[in-house]
Order: sequence, then structure tokens, then C-alpha cells
Amino acid sequence: MAERNSAILLVRCPDAKGLVAGVSGFLYEHGANILSTDEHRDDETRQFLMRVEWDLEDFGLEPGEFARAFESAVARRFGMQWRVAYAREPLRVAVFVSKYLHCLSDLLHRRREGELRADIRLVVSNHEEAAALAGFYNVPFHHIPVTPASKAEAERRQLELLEREEIDLVVLARYMQVLSPQFVARYPARIINVHHSFLPAFSGARPYQAAFERGVKLIGATAHYVTEELDEGPIIEQEVVRVSHRDQLADMIEKGRDAERLALARAVRWHTEHRILLDGRKTVVFV
Amino acid sequence: MAERNSAILLVRCPDAKGLVAGVSGFLYEHGANILSTDEHRDDETRQFLMRVEWDLEDFGLEPGEFARAFESAVARRFGMQWRVAYAREPLRVAVFVSKYLHCLSDLLHRRREGELRADIRLVVSNHEEAAALAGFYNVPFHHIPVTPASKAEAERRQLELLEREEIDLVVLARYMQVLSPQFVARYPARIINVHHSFLPAFSGARPYQAAFERGVKLIGATAHYVTEELDEGPIIEQEVVRVSHRDQLADMIEKGRDAERLALARAVRWHTEHRILLDGRKTVVFV
Amino acid sequence: MAERNSAILLVRCPDAKGLVAGVSGFLYEHGANILSTDEHRDDETRQFLMRVEWDLEDFGLEPGEFARAFESAVARRFGMQWRVAYAREPLRVAVFVSKYLHCLSDLLHRRREGELRADIRLVVSNHEEAAALAGFYNVPFHHIPVTPASKAEAERRQLELLEREEIDLVVLARYMQVLSPQFVARYPARIINVHHSFLPAFSGARPYQAAFERGVKLIGATAHYVTEELDEGPIIEQEVVRVSHRDQLADMIEKGRDAERLALARAVRWHTEHRILLDGRKTVVFV
Amino acid sequence: MAERNSAILLVRCPDAKGLVAGVSGFLYEHGANILSTDEHRDDETRQFLMRVEWDLEDFGLEPGEFARAFESAVARRFGMQWRVAYAREPLRVAVFVSKYLHCLSDLLHRRREGELRADIRLVVSNHEEAAALAGFYNVPFHHIPVTPASKAEAERRQLELLEREEIDLVVLARYMQVLSPQFVARYPARIINVHHSFLPAFSGARPYQAAFERGVKLIGATAHYVTEELDEGPIIEQEVVRVSHRDQLADMIEKGRDAERLALARAVRWHTEHRILLDGRKTVVFV
Repeated sequence: MAERNSAILLVRCPDAKGLVAGVSGFLYEHGANILSTDEHRDDETRQFLMRVEWDLEDFGLEPGEFARAFESAVARRFGMQWRVAYAREPLRVAVFVSKYLHCLSDLLHRRREGELRADIRLVVSNHEEAAALAGFYNVPFHHIPVTPASKAEAERRQLELLEREEIDLVVLARYMQVLSPQFVARYPARIINVHHSFLPAFSGARPYQAAFERGVKLIGATAHYVTEELDEGPIIEQEVVRVSHRDQLADMIEKGRDAERLALARAVRWHTEHRILLDGRKTVVFV
Repeated sequence: MAERNSAILLVRCPDAKGLVAGVSGFLYEHGANILSTDEHRDDETRQFLMRVEWDLEDFGLEPGEFARAFESAVARRFGMQWRVAYAREPLRVAVFVSKYLHCLSDLLHRRREGELRADIRLVVSNHEEAAALAGFYNVPFHHIPVTPASKAEAERRQLELLEREEIDLVVLARYMQVLSPQFVARYPARIINVHHSFLPAFSGARPYQAAFERGVKLIGATAHYVTEELDEGPIIEQEVVRVSHRDQLADMIEKGRDAERLALARAVRWHTEHRILLDGRKTVVFV
Repeated sequence: MAERNSAILLVRCPDAKGLVAGVSGFLYEHGANILSTDEHRDDETRQFLMRVEWDLEDFGLEPGEFARAFESAVARRFGMQWRVAYAREPLRVAVFVSKYLHCLSDLLHRRREGELRADIRLVVSNHEEAAALAGFYNVPFHHIPVTPASKAEAERRQLELLEREEIDLVVLARYMQVLSPQFVARYPARIINVHHSFLPAFSGARPYQAAFERGVKLIGATAHYVTEELDEGPIIEQEVVRVSHRDQLADMIEKGRDAERLALARAVRWHTEHRILLDGRKTVVFV
Repeated sequence: MAERNSAILLVRCPDAKGLVAGVSGFLYEHGANILSTDEHRDDETRQFLMRVEWDLEDFGLEPGEFARAFESAVARRFGMQWRVAYAREPLRVAVFVSKYLHCLSDLLHRRREGELRADIRLVVSNHEEAAALAGFYNVPFHHIPVTPASKAEAERRQLELLEREEIDLVVLARYMQVLSPQFVARYPARIINVHHSFLPAFSGARPYQAAFERGVKLIGATAHYVTEELDEGPIIEQEVVRVSHRDQLADMIEKGRDAERLALARAVRWHTEHRILLDGRKTVVFV
């Protein structure tokens, strides 16, 4: 995807007549060259969700002006929750990982290739295996061991790092620790986890073992936002891989990695491109 | 999908500022409750394509008024090609078939289930096998044999039927005859064919035989609009099925049927829901 | 798949040396022209499972002789459970259905096309909707209403029909009634159900509603053998379809039908081709 | 997959009675504990192909003895072409790459994870981009520039490296140079290439450009053995990814990388596990 000097507006409000006209009319008045418009109406919740991206060339409003002008001209009238993001300011990302490095390796490579336009600021791990990989991609690595006794202190150190680096998004790339509700509450809809099953099947620990024992014919992976309830957060993406009786547990784990890599990479990409909106406990993904 | 008393506007024009604002503003002024908006900008051709669907309740313009008002208020200004369709007037469809009945059976069943909201007016075949199936679903069946000598006369009879029934869409559901350029020219972007390969691979005759000989690991089916050039029309949908060395030619043909059914059913559905726009030799499918 | 005058031997026993040699040596001695051999060793249970198919031309043993000879020469030595089937004797199948007819229509059409080589002897339903469809395909239809009060009597009538027709396989093609444990016990590993979710996710009632509420990005269908525990029987096949926030509940139900059709059709086909072996609570499918 | 001290026998010969009995009987006599048997009969060519893997514990024949004994006891009688491989001797692999590093990165990571049991001895490139990545994974890197004038000399140097390192398999992981027929002839069925299209569609140069222009709805990648005819060698694996009108050329290239990675990784894995047999211009893959 070509680099663009664009702005992205994300909107949520009760559905009403005139919403698309209101937003697009406002942008037009200020000279916006719209690149894409996506919208969704949730028939159940009667919510309206919208994403508009426009080229900033010729656009008449500076970021500070935009907020004031949009709020008074459009947002207030429709009771909108909204935020605007700028493509030239990539999100600042922290990746948490334990011993399995396939997702981390995949994300770092995609970052280098330019597929993922994110500013990966740091890798945090309770183990040391990821240090060399992070180093190879020039990302600072922080080893923060976690034991039941040290967990609170470990989270304190992690949060300190996240704040210092002004992290926008935390990616749990097979991080085998459960974050405390306090931690999660600090980054609402800003922590993405990949669970190694097709949720809601096989939530919790050892999903491949459970899938193997149940004799399923497809295994999966799920990327989702982390909420207080384990494995219950809004699903962003899911991927499956076919298995058969020939696949032993170890084979399922290996095949599952491909699903994990793909589901997580897409979720992180969509988040960093501001394509995901929360809609209750679901996601709306504009792709 | 619930039945809706809605209108669908399809637009194509050169890209310009103010397009979304122009269309949505016009609809808002006339009281439209917009159900969905989709748009696409082709970066190469600089064309803008749009589909808007709105609820007709509260809408202030009758079909006749709409055309005049939209043309003068919006379309002229942007040089738009446009058309409007009404969900309460389902397209009138003719299905052409030869001896293989899996696609016909699938379409007729989907029609009965309500998945496909089309008015299937007639089944035309150069063979008699389909007569009973058409009869079971209460669709008039017309047996029009085709030989090299009788082809012109056969097409004349087919066209007469299509005109008499005011057919909007012709579906070639494994119709093993090539239509003449004259026939095709009468129904531009209104004839959908399913080709039993993953185009452009294996165009022309006996694609499964060719796929089998080449030793491919996936076989496919392609639903496309028919143009003068055989198998070269704009692709609407493609589907694939995995095969292996275990699959003999007969197995490929059987497995391929599932891909054919799915690709054709989706294409016909999208066409009848006015979701497809032509963009040069490609399609834009708003789903 | 071409019609073959073949025999299929299915074997299960504790793993041991010499099993393949023992079976293939026996068949060779009696002139068998082997068409395919498949085997599986379960690393956990240490069970060996095998399927051999051979051409009966030149084969020196009649069905009656085969049993005696194989038992004494091979089976006893390895403690084998085994059975032999003959391709020229297609299984006798009963299809149970309620109001949704897409799976029934699909199975009957595949039977007519020759994809499914089964002798579909009867359709049983607690509703009358399927009568015409069964009639069109010349399959006797039996309307057996089921209420809480009449369930025992209904099952008695169903079992009587199954026995009278010497049914080998019962297919629950979206039959919305739970069979009693007594009924299930009469047809162990001989009742195939299609559940409209990706099991074990969304077992029980209203799986599409649950999937819709959870906001999953893939929906599925599962064909499995029926056991006493609802939705817990050995899984034969699973299929998934991608969905998005655009899909309302009704759309999920429609898309899910394609997964249901495919999963059930494959499972029934594999069973009738004697390709499925039970391995504890899992299936081994030799395809 | 667990490490096994196993032997793998690959056999090809004209189909005949007694083949499975002959091979399995021979192995049984010498104490083999068979782990898996796979076989295929090609109905057209009347060839029989077989793969047997057995545990070497308790097996009574040393590698040298095996060849002589198997040849005289079994292979000669059936006119077999055969070879045996030992899991404890991983294949020696060279990876050729140009500027695109996604496949190389993927293979090296899978090697480190233990998914790919191959001894990657060297990376060869006509560019320098891959040097750091190879270094990170401790694989010697050789920069051999190729120009039209220097191509013959470059290939001479490449072949020298391959011979010195006793390379068994050459992997073209997006190596953008065409190898000479002389080079290819030195490694028959031992060079695997990944072509960035769904062959035979879009063979030759710039397949994504061609796919984009044609407006396909699925793009693909093909891993195949290299033969003298460009993109015409036996196909090992194919993978596809769904695209839409929203995907510009750059998006297709990015999405296609996932298909390339997966198709190539599977092909290399299967080759190194001795799971692929040639059958005319097709492959038989025992997985």
C-alpha cells in the first residue's frame, strides 16, 4: 500500500438521517479529496459507524482546527464519538512475547518489508529467547521475568515502559501470561492477543491439546482485543487450517502457527491502519 | 436477508471532490434513510463507483421524479452514468443449461429458500434433461435444440423468448454452447457464465482434463460476464477446491461441481441485488 | 468415481509388527488386485487401523469363504476387529429432516448425479415440507409428527421403518429433534448428524444466534456420528465460511447452509464408501 | 513432528499384484516396525508408487545390506526404481534468493523452530540484501552477481558451491533469475521454485501485474520442481488468497507473499521428508 499523507476519521453514533451527508459535506467544504468511505449500520443496536480517509493535500484544516470545527459543525449535532488519526504518525507498538517466537518474527519481518506501518518501539518478554531476534530488527528488548510473586511488580515495570514510550498498542504475540484487570483497564481496545484456537472453542489453557483430544478436522487461531474476561474480548480476525487423523499433537501445534501468524498480522495491521471500530462486544473491520 | 422496500443507486463517473457529499446530500434532502453506502475509486482509471441503498419509506421522490431530479441536481454536474433499481421489482432471469443440472438445481433451490431474490421466468436447454427439474420448481421449460445448422434459428427463438419475458439477466448454468456475438451484444453485462476452471487458467474446452494433465493441486470455477471473446469477460467470482494425486479426472469433475455451484450462485445473487459494477474489464462487487 | 466391483476390508487392532504384511500377503495369495491401501497408527492408543480395497475379478474367495479364511489366517493372530463390504451392495440410507430442506435437496441431487452411491430408501420428517422433494426424486416419504407426548411412539414407528427397510445408515439432514439414547444405541456409529456450528463451539440450540452475538469472523458446520451425548459424537468433517460485521443473523444462516451442505455431503459419501473408522472418540477418514 | 530414527523407502514400478505384500513382507522379515505406508496407483500410466517409513530400532539390516537384500529379494522381481533415505541424515539445502526476503526469512525461521528438518548449508544471492538475515541464522552467505554477460560464470561458481557442500536440494526462494538448462539438468527434481501465481495462469514475468489487469478474485502461488521449460515443471503445492477490487497491485503483491511463503514452506518440508514422488509430469505427495 502506497504511503499516503492522509487523515482517517472514525465515527460512532446513533443512526440518523443525514449522517453521511453531514460528514462528507463537511469534508468537501474544507477541500478534502476523499480516498475512501466505509460505513456500517448495526441493525440491532441502531448504531452508525463510519471510517473516512482523505488526502491532506488541499485540505483546509490543521489538526487542531479540525477537532473544533468538526465537533461544532457535525459531531455535536449527531452525538458522535469520534477520533481522527494521521497516516504520517504511525502508531507506537509494544510486542509482548514468551518463548514462542513465530508471531514476533513474522511481525518484525512484515514491519521491515513495509507491510506493517507501525513503529515497533519495544519487545517485552518474561524469557530471554526473543532478545536476539529483537536485536536483529533493531528493536529494544526488555526482559521482565514474571512469577506469581513478582507479577504485580513486573506489570508495574511493563506499564512504566509503555508510558515512557507512549505506546498506543500492545500486541501479545503468544505471551503466555494473563494480564491483570488493572493492566487491561489501562489500554482498553488497545491490547491485541492471539489465542491459539478458534474461539469460543477451546478457550483457556492448552487449546491444541483439547482440539487434538476432541478430534476436530480444522484448527484455528483468533486475534482479539483483550478485556478483563480471558478469551472473551471482541474478535478481530480468525483463521483456520485443515487437519486430519494423521496430525499428532505436535503437528497441530506446527500447523496452528501458520493460522496464528496470519490472524495476528492482519489484526495488527488493521488496527494500525485505523480500520477497526468497536461495536458492543464485536468489531467492525473496514477492509 | 430481510425483504426491504428499498432503492439502489449505482453510479460511475470520473473521480472528483464532492461526489459522496453530492449524492448523500441529495438523498438526505429528499428524506432518504440510507441503509448502506459503498464506493470505490479506481486509482488507475480515476473512475469513481458508488452504490447507495436507502429505505423508500419517508422518501419524497417517486421513481419518475427521482430520475429528473437526480439528473439535474447531481448527475449532470459530475458527468455520471447512473441507474436506479428497486428491491420490490426483482430481476427477471432466464437460465440456460445443457445436460449438467447441478447449477440449475442449486439456483432453483436457492430461489425457493429465498436466498436468491430473482424472478426465474424460464429455463432454456438444448437437451431435455432439465425439463422435470424446471417443472418441479414451476419454471417454464423450453427445449431448443442447437446444431451447427440450426444455431442461428435457435438463437432467434431464444431471443424471442427473452424479449417476450422481458428478461433482465441470462444465466449460463453450464450451457455448453457458445453464444454468437450478435446474441451477446444484445445483453451486455447481462449474461453470466460459469466456466469450470480458475480463469485465466484452462480457458476453452475440457478444462478439467487439462487441469488433470497438468497436475494442479487446486481446481476452480469462475463466474463472469460473457463478452464476445470466449472466457475473457469480466470476472465476478472465483472459487477453488483442493485436489491431490488421488483424484482421477472423474473426481476432479465431481469436486469441481461444488466450486461451480458456489461461484455461480454468488455471482447471480450479487447481480440480482445490484451489487456489481463494471470497471473497464473488471468488476467492482460491493458485498 | 468409476463403478468398481471391489471389496473393502476395514481393520482395527493393537499395533504390531507384520500387520501390513499379514493382510496384504493374505490378499495376494488369493489373487487380489489391490486398488488402494490406507493405514493409520494411533501413537496414543497404539491402535492400528487399515482400509484395503481390491478388485474382485480374479479374487479366489467368495464372501462366505473370505470371512472364515481371513479370520483363521490373519485376524485371530492379531486380535483384529474387522468387517468387509462390497461396492456392488450400496448402503441403504434413511434421511431424517424437519423443515429446512437444503441438505436433503443436496443429497438427493448428488445421489441422482451418481456422486453419492447410496440407496436412499426413505425420507422421514416430523413436518410435511419435504414430501414433494422426496417425491420428485422417487424416494418414499414418511410423515411422523413428534411432540413431547408422542416422541416415544414416533421413535417406535421410525425404528420399525428402519428395520423393515434394513437401513444401514441414518442421516440427520437438519432434523431438529433429539433422538433418545435408546434409538441412538440401536445404530452405533450409523447415525450422522450435521450440526450448524463449528463444534465444539456453539453446541446445543441456536448456534447461529450465539455465533452472531459473539461476533465470530468464521462460521462453520460439523458432520458427526450421533452418540448419547448431544453434539459430542466423533467428528467426521467440518467446514467454515467467512463472515463479517456486514452479515446479520439471517445472512449467517444463509451462508452457513453452504457449509452444512458440504460437510454433510462429504461425511455421507465417506461413510457409504467405507472410508471412516472409529478410533476412540475420534474418526479416521481415509480419503 | 517428533524426531525419529527411521528409514524411508520410496518405490516406483509398473503396477502388479503382490507389490504391497512383497515390500511389507520383506520389511517384516527383517524386523521392521512400520510407522506408515502410503501408496498410489496411477490409473493412466499403470504405475505403482509407494512410501514406507519404519523405525530402525530392531531392524536387522544396515544401510549397505539393505540395498543388496532389497534389490535381490523384491526390487528386481517387480522392476522397481527405488531409493531409501534415513531421517537422521537431513538433506543438505541451498537457498537462492534475490531481493525479496519473505520466503527466505520464513524458511530460516521454520528451520530454527524445528518445523523444517533440513541442513540449510548456504544462501546464494545476486544481491546483498539477504546477507544480514543469513548471518542472523548462522548460514553462510554467498554474493554472486549475475549479469547477462556473467551468467555462465556465475552459474559455474554456484555449481561449485553446491558440489563442495554436497547439496541435495536447491530452493529458489524468489530468485529472479532463470537457470540455464545445463544447471537444471544437474539437479533433476532437486530444484524447487516458487512462482508467484496460480500456475498455469500467469506464467512468466510479472504475474501480479497480469492478475491485477485481468481482475481475478483469487491470487495464488505455486511451488514446483524446475525443469527446462520455464514454469512448466511438476507442481508440488499451490495456495490462494482472496482479493477484491479494493486491492491495488501493491496490495496483491503483499497478500501474495503469504501464499508464496506457505506454498514454498510446505513443498520444501515435504521434499526434505521424502514425501514427494514424480509421476510423469505430476507429483505424488504422501501427506
